[in-house]
Amino acid sequence: MEKHTLAERTAAQLIGMIQERSYRPGDKLPTEMELAADLNVGRNTVREALRLLMSRNIVTVRQGAGTFVSEKNGVADDPLGFGMREDKDRLTRELLQIRVILEPPIAGLAAQNAEPEELVRLEGILGEMERLIREKKDYSRADSEFHAQIAACTHNEVMSDLVPVITEGVRVFASNVQETEYEQTLISHRAIFRAIAERRPEEARQAMQYHLLYNQYRYVNAQEPGDGKK
Amino acid sequence: MEKHTLAERTAAQLIGMIQERSYRPGDKLPTEMELAADLNVGRNTVREALRLLMSRNIVTVRQGAGTFVSEKNGVADDPLGFGMREDKDRLTRELLQIRVILEPPIAGLAAQNAEPEELVRLEGILGEMERLIREKKDYSRADSEFHAQIAACTHNEVMSDLVPVITEGVRVFASNVQETEYEQTLISHRAIFRAIAERRPEEARQAMQYHLLYNQYRYVNAQEPGDGKK
Repeated sequence: MEKHTLAERTAAQLIGMIQERSYRPGDKLPTEMELAADLNVGRNTVREALRLLMSRNIVTVRQGAGTFVSEKNGVADDPLGFGMREDKDRLTRELLQIRVILEPPIAGLAAQNAEPEELVRLEGILGEMERLIREKKDYSRADSEFHAQIAACTHNEVMSDLVPVITEGVRVFASNVQETEYEQTLISHRAIFRAIAERRPEEARQAMQYHLLYNQYRYVNAQEPGDGKK
Repeated sequence: MEKHTLAERTAAQLIGMIQERSYRPGDKLPTEMELAADLNVGRNTVREALRLLMSRNIVTVRQGAGTFVSEKNGVADDPLGFGMREDKDRLTRELLQIRVILEPPIAGLAAQNAEPEELVRLEGILGEMERLIREKKDYSRADSEFHAQIAACTHNEVMSDLVPVITEGVRVFASNVQETEYEQTLISHRAIFRAIAERRPEEARQAMQYHLLYNQYRYVNAQEPGDGKK
């Protein structure tokens, strides 16, 4: 435990160092040997500390190339422990409920704050999703990316980091929600995009709300016919 | 890297094992030696895999006692990387904006879904906060706990896990928001509690919205007099 505690403290020092020296995502860190000398600890401790930072997505190790500041900015994989949840049906309902609360105002903020180049990227993702839908292929990854890009358009970084956690949670861990709603998905995503691109925040909010409520009700009714939402 | 990959795979197997055997938080896991034999890997690999799970709050090691399933249920510490953010003022604004979106409907759901014993606990936390406020002591931890308990009352576990991340983010990482608003804090938290306890979801939502907007505007105005929210 003593050794682990030292590694944890070293990890905290490394975070401090990354911030003080204003390292950016993708920047290369000093070698293990240099870090050990700088922080006055052994190389094994540095290695263990770097592993801890790796598991928190603060640094990335590229074999043979060295240690770099992670592009994921310290956002942990599965940060809310969805993978640990046993009742996937309940997890799905909970995630859909959160999406209905969180994403309509996010669409409104996106319509208000998006930069032109962010809208170009959003339209690109929409186009890719539409292509996959026309070809009746799995579009879930593009779908998730579309919602993440809307969150990025808010310019609220916490939302940009949080929304992918929720949408990827639905995609990876939840019971299957969409599958075959090709036509409805096409129409509703295009409506959300247009309201955002044309700077109509209130309609963007409504379009997102309609889309997510539609998904939520369809999931709930598919699971419990005639029962409705708990 | 090979070794790390093996540890990661072993960590994934351990998660699978915890789920399959329906271990609950607080349950003791087999020893490192037993796990090594079970999973057919070396003890060093098991140890490294357990460290990874420790850093993700999936297991806890108690010195001399063994390895246990963590009470934190796989929710990472600082899962959204707030500690990595440099502009604390911007982080604070972003967190306050998310709270304004997320917590009013959570208060509404709490008023609708809370069990009597959850309300008893909520009132206990409120009493503690009121005591600290009367004694002009730091009540921020009790405040954060009050909001976390409201989220628990929704019976949406994702919300229960997410709200503390946001409120603790404000408490630990953000610029100081409250400090001396003793009287207003007393009144607004009591109003939120009463609406929830008396099963008035729409008023609980409004009371929470008023409370959070009040905080948000006060913070924004304190930072940029006469400028208002960006």
